Amino acid sequence: MAGGKGKVLLAYSGGLDTSTILAWLIDEGYDVVAFMADVGQEEDFEAARQKAIKCGAKGFILQDMKREFVENLIWPAVQANAIYEDVYLLGTSLARPVIARGMIEAAEKEGCQFVSHGCTGKGNDQVRFELAFYGLKPDIKVIAPWRIPEFYNRFAGRSALLEYAASKGIPVTQTKAKPWSTDENLFHISYEAGILEDPNTTPPDDMWKLTTSPEKAPESPERISIFFKQGIPVSIKVSSTGKEHTDAVDIFLTLNALARTHGIGRVDIVENRFIGVKSRGCYESPGATILRTAHIDLEGLTLDREVRRIRDSIVTTKLSEILYYGFFFSPESEFVRSCIPHSQKTVNGEVRLKLYKGNVVVEGRQSDEMLYDEKFSSMDELGGFEPEATSGFITVQAIRLKRHGLGQQAKGVAGVGVDKAYNI
Amino acid sequence: MAGGKGKVLLAYSGGLDTSTILAWLIDEGYDVVAFMADVGQEEDFEAARQKAIKCGAKGFILQDMKREFVENLIWPAVQANAIYEDVYLLGTSLARPVIARGMIEAAEKEGCQFVSHGCTGKGNDQVRFELAFYGLKPDIKVIAPWRIPEFYNRFAGRSALLEYAASKGIPVTQTKAKPWSTDENLFHISYEAGILEDPNTTPPDDMWKLTTSPEKAPESPERISIFFKQGIPVSIKVSSTGKEHTDAVDIFLTLNALARTHGIGRVDIVENRFIGVKSRGCYESPGATILRTAHIDLEGLTLDREVRRIRDSIVTTKLSEILYYGFFFSPESEFVRSCIPHSQKTVNGEVRLKLYKGNVVVEGRQSDEMLYDEKFSSMDELGGFEPEATSGFITVQAIRLKRHGLGQQAKGVAGVGVDKAYNI
Amino acid sequence: MAGGKGKVLLAYSGGLDTSTILAWLIDEGYDVVAFMADVGQEEDFEAARQKAIKCGAKGFILQDMKREFVENLIWPAVQANAIYEDVYLLGTSLARPVIARGMIEAAEKEGCQFVSHGCTGKGNDQVRFELAFYGLKPDIKVIAPWRIPEFYNRFAGRSALLEYAASKGIPVTQTKAKPWSTDENLFHISYEAGILEDPNTTPPDDMWKLTTSPEKAPESPERISIFFKQGIPVSIKVSSTGKEHTDAVDIFLTLNALARTHGIGRVDIVENRFIGVKSRGCYESPGATILRTAHIDLEGLTLDREVRRIRDSIVTTKLSEILYYGFFFSPESEFVRSCIPHSQKTVNGEVRLKLYKGNVVVEGRQSDEMLYDEKFSSMDELGGFEPEATSGFITVQAIRLKRHGLGQQAKGVAGVGVDKAYNI
Amino acid sequence: MAGGKGKVLLAYSGGLDTSTILAWLIDEGYDVVAFMADVGQEEDFEAARQKAIKCGAKGFILQDMKREFVENLIWPAVQANAIYEDVYLLGTSLARPVIARGMIEAAEKEGCQFVSHGCTGKGNDQVRFELAFYGLKPDIKVIAPWRIPEFYNRFAGRSALLEYAASKGIPVTQTKAKPWSTDENLFHISYEAGILEDPNTTPPDDMWKLTTSPEKAPESPERISIFFKQGIPVSIKVSSTGKEHTDAVDIFLTLNALARTHGIGRVDIVENRFIGVKSRGCYESPGATILRTAHIDLEGLTLDREVRRIRDSIVTTKLSEILYYGFFFSPESEFVRSCIPHSQKTVNGEVRLKLYKGNVVVEGRQSDEMLYDEKFSSMDELGGFEPEATSGFITVQAIRLKRHGLGQQAKGVAGVGVDKAYNI
Repeated sequence: MAGGKGKVLLAYSGGLDTSTILAWLIDEGYDVVAFMADVGQEEDFEAARQKAIKCGAKGFILQDMKREFVENLIWPAVQANAIYEDVYLLGTSLARPVIARGMIEAAEKEGCQFVSHGCTGKGNDQVRFELAFYGLKPDIKVIAPWRIPEFYNRFAGRSALLEYAASKGIPVTQTKAKPWSTDENLFHISYEAGILEDPNTTPPDDMWKLTTSPEKAPESPERISIFFKQGIPVSIKVSSTGKEHTDAVDIFLTLNALARTHGIGRVDIVENRFIGVKSRGCYESPGATILRTAHIDLEGLTLDREVRRIRDSIVTTKLSEILYYGFFFSPESEFVRSCIPHSQKTVNGEVRLKLYKGNVVVEGRQSDEMLYDEKFSSMDELGGFEPEATSGFITVQAIRLKRHGLGQQAKGVAGVGVDKAYNI
Repeated sequence: MAGGKGKVLLAYSGGLDTSTILAWLIDEGYDVVAFMADVGQEEDFEAARQKAIKCGAKGFILQDMKREFVENLIWPAVQANAIYEDVYLLGTSLARPVIARGMIEAAEKEGCQFVSHGCTGKGNDQVRFELAFYGLKPDIKVIAPWRIPEFYNRFAGRSALLEYAASKGIPVTQTKAKPWSTDENLFHISYEAGILEDPNTTPPDDMWKLTTSPEKAPESPERISIFFKQGIPVSIKVSSTGKEHTDAVDIFLTLNALARTHGIGRVDIVENRFIGVKSRGCYESPGATILRTAHIDLEGLTLDREVRRIRDSIVTTKLSEILYYGFFFSPESEFVRSCIPHSQKTVNGEVRLKLYKGNVVVEGRQSDEMLYDEKFSSMDELGGFEPEATSGFITVQAIRLKRHGLGQQAKGVAGVGVDKAYNI
Repeated sequence: MAGGKGKVLLAYSGGLDTSTILAWLIDEGYDVVAFMADVGQEEDFEAARQKAIKCGAKGFILQDMKREFVENLIWPAVQANAIYEDVYLLGTSLARPVIARGMIEAAEKEGCQFVSHGCTGKGNDQVRFELAFYGLKPDIKVIAPWRIPEFYNRFAGRSALLEYAASKGIPVTQTKAKPWSTDENLFHISYEAGILEDPNTTPPDDMWKLTTSPEKAPESPERISIFFKQGIPVSIKVSSTGKEHTDAVDIFLTLNALARTHGIGRVDIVENRFIGVKSRGCYESPGATILRTAHIDLEGLTLDREVRRIRDSIVTTKLSEILYYGFFFSPESEFVRSCIPHSQKTVNGEVRLKLYKGNVVVEGRQSDEMLYDEKFSSMDELGGFEPEATSGFITVQAIRLKRHGLGQQAKGVAGVGVDKAYNI
Repeated sequence: MAGGKGKVLLAYSGGLDTSTILAWLIDEGYDVVAFMADVGQEEDFEAARQKAIKCGAKGFILQDMKREFVENLIWPAVQANAIYEDVYLLGTSLARPVIARGMIEAAEKEGCQFVSHGCTGKGNDQVRFELAFYGLKPDIKVIAPWRIPEFYNRFAGRSALLEYAASKGIPVTQTKAKPWSTDENLFHISYEAGILEDPNTTPPDDMWKLTTSPEKAPESPERISIFFKQGIPVSIKVSSTGKEHTDAVDIFLTLNALARTHGIGRVDIVENRFIGVKSRGCYESPGATILRTAHIDLEGLTLDREVRRIRDSIVTTKLSEILYYGFFFSPESEFVRSCIPHSQKTVNGEVRLKLYKGNVVVEGRQSDEMLYDEKFSSMDELGGFEPEATSGFITVQAIRLKRHGLGQQAKGVAGVGVDKAYNI
């Protein structure tokens, strides 16, 4: 009954899981087209193609989505200073909308009624993929085998997968499985599951794949300049090479290479997944870590204080949550992203950085924007400032406080001794 | 007419500025008592005492406020993850309420109708001191010489100060003035003004006083454990010494010493002052940097996701602004601080850290709180989880998105191609 | 096999739906105890008891929860000015946690492993009930028949229910079903579904059950005083009766009676349900509407501005969402509610109101709190105020604006003409 | 020395205060041009012109700013649901930026180096005017006589003003001064000061100028329809006249007339001024009250839930504060207003209203936007909804709650009894 149920576009990785799903979908009566997005991960795409065909795929699509990833997802995240729970730079979250869009576009071209993926039923990625699918194409149908009892009960352990693969003639790489899972793209690599599920286990040194450890990083620092235009990196200059890079993808990959060398961008976190469980994850986000430091620094020089406050409270916080939870193709995402450009109008200038053994050190910054005025800010000269004005400013600011203080003292609940002063 | 105008308690530093103010206030007809708070700064208090008396002070008060500083200001800031504009840990801001409280208490004891300080008219500290004074004692009178034209015009340059000091027999230290200003306490040291006013000037290596540079820090890392109870550090264990520290001040100073050795806690920022000017500041906050990393990490393991979201949006953001702007003794500060304890009820446990050349690396964490459940979170086993439930979860989450997508498609403004998908 | 599957506590209403569920659960092999909470709805509880027993219930529990409802749910909502989407006062949402707590307590006493309810699969109440059940007793098991295909397919229309009822000898009230559904408690009544599902249909006059229409309300107004202590109503005085009421339930019911007479508290709204669909609802919340007006007014007089801002942004908004979505027994609810008491410390005083044909008019308010100072606020005398201080205040507030204006003008993007001034 | 100090553009009202200021400025050596903005207030502009010239003004400018007021200030406020402290619709705040812009434009045309106004030193309007002046023209100079000691001491009481007026031959209207102050424009009228400074004094019936009291309003209601496009009212239909109005100013004035007749839009509030004092104000905002009700209602039908949440938390709250405090021409105002258009993309449709004795009753609404789907939302049919999905949704939402409940129970701090269940 091959293909009788319709046509599926499968997010294919070339690994044991998605190869099994590919073959199982065919068993179940679907035609399957395998889809791979090149979002910068290290991968033998040709080997994957051959394996997909061997598994029975009716087609194989490889799409280079690196530029779309950098320009449409990473740049807005840099502009917004997106970060999840103070630590995680959202590398996996950022890639999902790109891949999902590529898949839906391909599904339409290939005439697929279904899309499928190999995400587990406990993670964030299933949600991110599927919400993106539905946001882009409300009538798409999704097959998530790891949430279908017949599938997950049948393939409960690795041996069941291997046995099935053997029965289907699916080639299995003989490399020993690592005791953790990874997801890689040009922004980052993530590590989770396996031995990392004990949050008190220190990740082994050889887990970290992208970056040199700070201990083994070069003794001499690198110095670079990053130039931003409306909050977007438009050029970088690298001291050691004397080169300038201006293409978006080139900028990002160059920063990645430098950061990897200098041990920058490792984090280890227990985070809160969208489905409400806590999860331990380790991440390497080398270039992104440099960009975050530089962008925040330039905003110090060029962004109005109150614009920054409002932006932080809404764009930064909300966009980060939207990305992490998987709502990129949603009305609220459109709304929040519509607020970014105005917030970045003045974020133009250069940030000079030193990279050294895990540290990203700001060494200076400059801008033609006029929000910082050296003379006026100077502690050493008046520069047009009237010090008496501050007296009035303080007097007025104190009105509420005095009124409150009088009220509290009248009640006897306030006082200047330690006990009463800090008592709330 | 000495003392005819009343009695002033002066925040005295022992330096040229406040010595001049001391003498000038006496000239103006006030009795003056000099007040120094020991908040952990490196200072020759005895020399300052002698100088104050020599300048004509009727009294000199030295108050050890280190414990009050740590327990009543720093601990709540650690619990709240307080930070200003993503970078500044608020070291100066945190010390001001403590010093102001000490001053107001001393002013009451000494029968002073006035308090005075040597802060300039452009900075944050004048505001912080005075709002704290008024909040604690609404009827206190403040003399701020650097905002009084007769004073600031007369003493417009350093030479005028020196000349006056000579005329009054005030001893002046012959050390060459550094080309920047500093403020130091046990939490941090700040550098600003002078050559730092050009935001593109890299601070010279010899500016940094507290910390070894990462480059010169030891080649071998230190490892420590920090134990928190309700978000407050209650004990630390240091690998290299094998010692445990449990006293609040001892914990903080020990972390400081370790962080200084390992080059931890330097930042360089252009920040937005309360009065609306931008200002470049460099800071070393060694121990505080370690504590922030550790506390945030433990919250990952022990704090409910939604409590964290709400806490971040209100306690963290608001308390940081309250501290920076100087509203510690205000109704809103009382309110925000009243929200901290409940938020920290479950923040109990241990964080293990590696300190190495500027890096604070989390190596593991554990807690008896039950918010993280290894079995339930596991990617490798079901552990009580029903994967089908997530299908329903996603289906319901997608309702709004599908509805929006249908509406947008009906209007022809949405689509799956790059142009329409990212168009907002 | 009666009772072989265990014991169920069923939220019973006495209507056709829950009577059918009662009988069906017995058919399915459960023992069933019927539970009714008296939260102030108009109901013949004795008739319901008899019907439950007739349907085969092993027991019937009627619990008077009115005081718990008023004191533990309604008062905090009044203190927090809780409101959903600017219009809905959350009457149904507020009752659910009370009923759920009563049920879980009863389930424990009766040895029930299961709880069940008759909520539909599209509404908010199923979520509110079940999240409350799980929050209070994580291991409770829930049976929601309207989400079980065997049940909802079998009982797809009213005739199937009636036929089943007849077959089981369940008495059916012969009153004609109204073309909408209602939920009633002492706080409010809601109307939804049926003819109301067209949002452009004006509700018929005879739908509104609790309140007189403004058109038919008395020509002469009522005047009352409400006294608050820490934001909680502790006493009311009614002009027309000359009576004072001080008991919590009595206060609320008296306000209800007055508001019903004077046509106060009707709203008609399209709201956003938790599950992501929009829904049209009409509500009558008579007494609650008076309390909201009065409490907000008193906060104007007695609450510090910044405390109010922070409270609004977090407690009001978050508690309203928590209540509406059903997260009352959650960590974030505990956290948010822990912030209420401090915010209400100064909300003490009296508000005088006029009730007239749908209007709640504030006629005056007073308080012993000292936050309002008539002399100091006066426009007609200085009262201790220094007008020059405001000059300094404005000068400092303008610093950022001038800087921005200069920058914009330098770029040529700002100007004083209409086109440029409003151009963003 | 007439005019020797330069040229001043004075915000002139024709009253005793600004006439005195006009003459006094001339005494002080300035040339003065009087400026009046017609923002819809009831005023004899010709009489004012004559008086200004009589007082010695070198010129008199009357500018009709009604359309600018409606289109550039009121419409965005309607789109944003702007409201201050839950009650005040910001009528005065909204007019200030318009008048200030007119003044700065006129000052440039007239070659004035100064602008001046008659606002007192305790109010909001001085701040609103001056911040707008500085935002639009950073180098403008402001003369605020009521903050200049020589002026406010000299003219401390009304008799001093009258005496001066007599000495200058300034005609004084003999109408008895009302015991309160007012500010009027087409949006509203405000009453404050005088007898209103006691917050417990009920405003006398004859104070209210714009609206009929609900008691005296017609017995029969009016019915109208308001049509919105992207959140802006583009047309209204009035039942009683059968007319349709489509011009912005006409729409607003027509709504005003209807609301005045039907007693709509009175409020009485104690509010928090920007300078930190509390103040009692009474306002009539007739048409604006109708528009607010209608716009919020239509958003219920047409705005996505999460877009609404984010918009409320940022645009509504912030824009209201920006307007009230006077920061309309500021970077944060530009930023916040840049977020409005996207939020209103789907706010298209009609709202039907009944106006009756102070009540604005929504009777229905409709829209071509597809966010509300009657079939899908229906409680009476499935309409494509899968009830089982909600089970999964609830199961996943409960994960955090169960985990928290288990943790609390393990500690013995949670329980199902009243005492423990509500204990926080």
